[in-house]
Amino acid sequence: MSSGAPQPSPLLTDLYQLTMMQGYFASGLHTQTAVFDLNFRRLPYKGGYAVWAGLEEMLETLESLRFAAEELAYLDTLGLFQADFLAALRDWRFSGQIDAFAEGSVVFAYEPLLTVTAPLWEAQLVETMLLNTLNFQTLVATKAARCVLAAQSSPHGGEVIEFGARRAQGPDGALSAARAAFVGGATGTSNVQAGQRLGLPLTGTHAHAWVESFPDELGAFRAYARVYPDSTTLLLDTVDTLGSGLPNALTVARELRAAGHELRGVRLDSGDLAYLSRTVRAALDAAGFGDVKIVASNDLSESVIAAIIAEGGRVDVYGVGTQLATAGGPGGGALGGVYKLAQLDGRPRMKLTGDPVKSSLPGVKRVWRGQGADGTFGWDVLTLGDEPQPGQAVSDPTNPLRSGRLPTALRWEDARQTVMAGGRRTQPAVALPGIQARARQELARLPAETRRLLNPHVYRVSLGADVSGLRDWVSAELRAGLG
Amino acid sequence: MSSGAPQPSPLLTDLYQLTMMQGYFASGLHTQTAVFDLNFRRLPYKGGYAVWAGLEEMLETLESLRFAAEELAYLDTLGLFQADFLAALRDWRFSGQIDAFAEGSVVFAYEPLLTVTAPLWEAQLVETMLLNTLNFQTLVATKAARCVLAAQSSPHGGEVIEFGARRAQGPDGALSAARAAFVGGATGTSNVQAGQRLGLPLTGTHAHAWVESFPDELGAFRAYARVYPDSTTLLLDTVDTLGSGLPNALTVARELRAAGHELRGVRLDSGDLAYLSRTVRAALDAAGFGDVKIVASNDLSESVIAAIIAEGGRVDVYGVGTQLATAGGPGGGALGGVYKLAQLDGRPRMKLTGDPVKSSLPGVKRVWRGQGADGTFGWDVLTLGDEPQPGQAVSDPTNPLRSGRLPTALRWEDARQTVMAGGRRTQPAVALPGIQARARQELARLPAETRRLLNPHVYRVSLGADVSGLRDWVSAELRAGLG
Repeated sequence: MSSGAPQPSPLLTDLYQLTMMQGYFASGLHTQTAVFDLNFRRLPYKGGYAVWAGLEEMLETLESLRFAAEELAYLDTLGLFQADFLAALRDWRFSGQIDAFAEGSVVFAYEPLLTVTAPLWEAQLVETMLLNTLNFQTLVATKAARCVLAAQSSPHGGEVIEFGARRAQGPDGALSAARAAFVGGATGTSNVQAGQRLGLPLTGTHAHAWVESFPDELGAFRAYARVYPDSTTLLLDTVDTLGSGLPNALTVARELRAAGHELRGVRLDSGDLAYLSRTVRAALDAAGFGDVKIVASNDLSESVIAAIIAEGGRVDVYGVGTQLATAGGPGGGALGGVYKLAQLDGRPRMKLTGDPVKSSLPGVKRVWRGQGADGTFGWDVLTLGDEPQPGQAVSDPTNPLRSGRLPTALRWEDARQTVMAGGRRTQPAVALPGIQARARQELARLPAETRRLLNPHVYRVSLGADVSGLRDWVSAELRAGLG
Repeated sequence: MSSGAPQPSPLLTDLYQLTMMQGYFASGLHTQTAVFDLNFRRLPYKGGYAVWAGLEEMLETLESLRFAAEELAYLDTLGLFQADFLAALRDWRFSGQIDAFAEGSVVFAYEPLLTVTAPLWEAQLVETMLLNTLNFQTLVATKAARCVLAAQSSPHGGEVIEFGARRAQGPDGALSAARAAFVGGATGTSNVQAGQRLGLPLTGTHAHAWVESFPDELGAFRAYARVYPDSTTLLLDTVDTLGSGLPNALTVARELRAAGHELRGVRLDSGDLAYLSRTVRAALDAAGFGDVKIVASNDLSESVIAAIIAEGGRVDVYGVGTQLATAGGPGGGALGGVYKLAQLDGRPRMKLTGDPVKSSLPGVKRVWRGQGADGTFGWDVLTLGDEPQPGQAVSDPTNPLRSGRLPTALRWEDARQTVMAGGRRTQPAVALPGIQARARQELARLPAETRRLLNPHVYRVSLGADVSGLRDWVSAELRAGLG
């Protein structure tokens, strides 16, 4: 399946990647094998988990990434690059290996989500595009999962659709957001381009302008129902939700039924959505329209959805726009994913910096996930090398002094797989419904207290003794080099 | 000049735009002349102004917007659209008129930034793409202006460059952000694609990985300087900023000078940037390297920049990434721009809704800007019709009870112009440096207290008596229709 996104150019990169590439090339270092880890240091939205998204799109991009002639001609105009380097870029391909969590997996801070093993100048170039795509899609998929879990907490159920194209950060922002929202559990989008390019289910109602384009609201409702007798959702608040929109919608619902059709839904877009949805539900039910769905919109977020449900609201479909398409709210907006050199030419590498939390972890690591007897996720551990499972002694990634022992009852699995080797996928692409299903299954295996919206239990991610030992050894060596 | 952005497809729209278009078409309403206003209700970042951006790109898009055969074929698969409607879309063009503030203008809440006058089905389709582009670019241009004004408040000056591609919301998000940041006053970007497609100046340093790729930091610095003897900026914090990075950079600066070159700059990316920049500046000056620039990065924003300057920091160039490319921070993330029907077939139109702040303003409006004798912007007023200047009685757009009189000393100008007629631009496209210059000039004409970062003076935007009178009349008529 094609992701349908326009193929990113290799120029979707920071200038310094290209100047460093030429520097490696000039120094004869460019073909040394580098290992880079991609991870983030803080879960978004002050939440307990993230849903890993964007990987399949990135694999497709990496397989076809090339410098076009006009791109090389542009680089030549910058006065920074030598002819031999530009000539070498003509044949540049991504030939590396990628180990990663499957897209749709539930992931946590400090663990390598994706590891690139490739010639240094290949691994360096793709940093910006990997971070751009994986940061944003993971952020939106996580937001969608939070909204969906909130909606599903109602005894009456509830689903989420993505409505945010007009507030998304650019045209591609809208497309990427629609894709990632679907991964995180949204059932559809209003973005027609996402339907065409990604095969996502489309959904929609009508706008206030429709009602204003007719002499009166009832005439507007009737006209819409005449064109879409089996798929009409009427917007109730152009004039007055309960005083006008609701009675006019009931009139049209009766007229549709008399003609052998059924009104599909009504939409609330302002006012107290908990109160209005209860009132509208009761009126629809009393009139014999128990199957008419109530759609709500207007600056929704996971916390607004939870509040509507807590007050007995009866919304069936939450149309989430701005907050979903731009991953808004506290702890949102951007995921601070980073991409750090862990090994070069067989030698472990790390950066120290003035801020210990920003130090990186050297070495080629494996990520283990420990599960309870019922399959519930319990603990993730990073190790080095090829042991069949982690040793018992572990420590905290942010505080070397906090160490402990793993519980013995967990069953351990290697949480990642080799998804690309020699620049080619190792397995067929996974279609979006399959990725969405994986996310749903993985979210169900999280402890309930980790899924909580507010103040969740912090899932444990630890370092095996070999990882922390290597970090201490490399950082001591780096500091000694100062003397 | 080409904006260089990929041409958005007409499918970058919400499904309901297309279903409403077919509804208008089926009802014979689609060619009625509609007037839609685009405006926002709240200034971003709790600031005092916004910088209007994205217009030139949108005009270019509207001139060439067409339905491609494969797009129509996709729409046909949805089972929603009739053959005659799809046939009509084959010849669909945007043939309307657009009146708008020139791109780069300083704008405020509640005023129509852009007005579309077009056959109803044309005006309806383009809503989503207009909002998508203009909301986001205005948001980022405004963020950039805030950062630039903060940087320039230092007695030593300062400039801002955009570094955010890896955190931007998708590939186009990165490109749009680079464009809008330039409009708002950023002097360059690290995004190579933005250089190629938009002609923006590129800038960059090197990453920690460069230093880690060599046996030691000094060797890494020397290798970079060898390849870029006239454009090297060294990153100081891979090991220890003052203990290692600074002395090694000074060594390389001396070696470069001995060879007839000059080190261009050093970059600080962690730690206390005010303290470190003061200390590094003093050391560079003492060693005779007063022209070496200090670049700072690491989660910068306008408030961090202001704090660095307040503490005597000596940063020359602020590399702003995440916060700029994603328009982050309080009151950021998304601009709530809306697009509302104001008139149809000569009749004024509005929506009421349950929330008075979300009511729209009916009628074809003009935006006046009143200026003081020195050219300082003083007051914006919306009127109807063709008066040569606003009348004196005005009221507040959010509170009909707050009315007052305009000062007599202001000189009034029509703040907008007709930028498109019959679907074609009325004047040549403006290149990005010209747009940036306009923004700089307009920002300089704002009262200083309106430019303030925190708790700015609220610039006055008022309704002329004719506008508020029409609103009251249309809303009374709408409510009467309920009876």
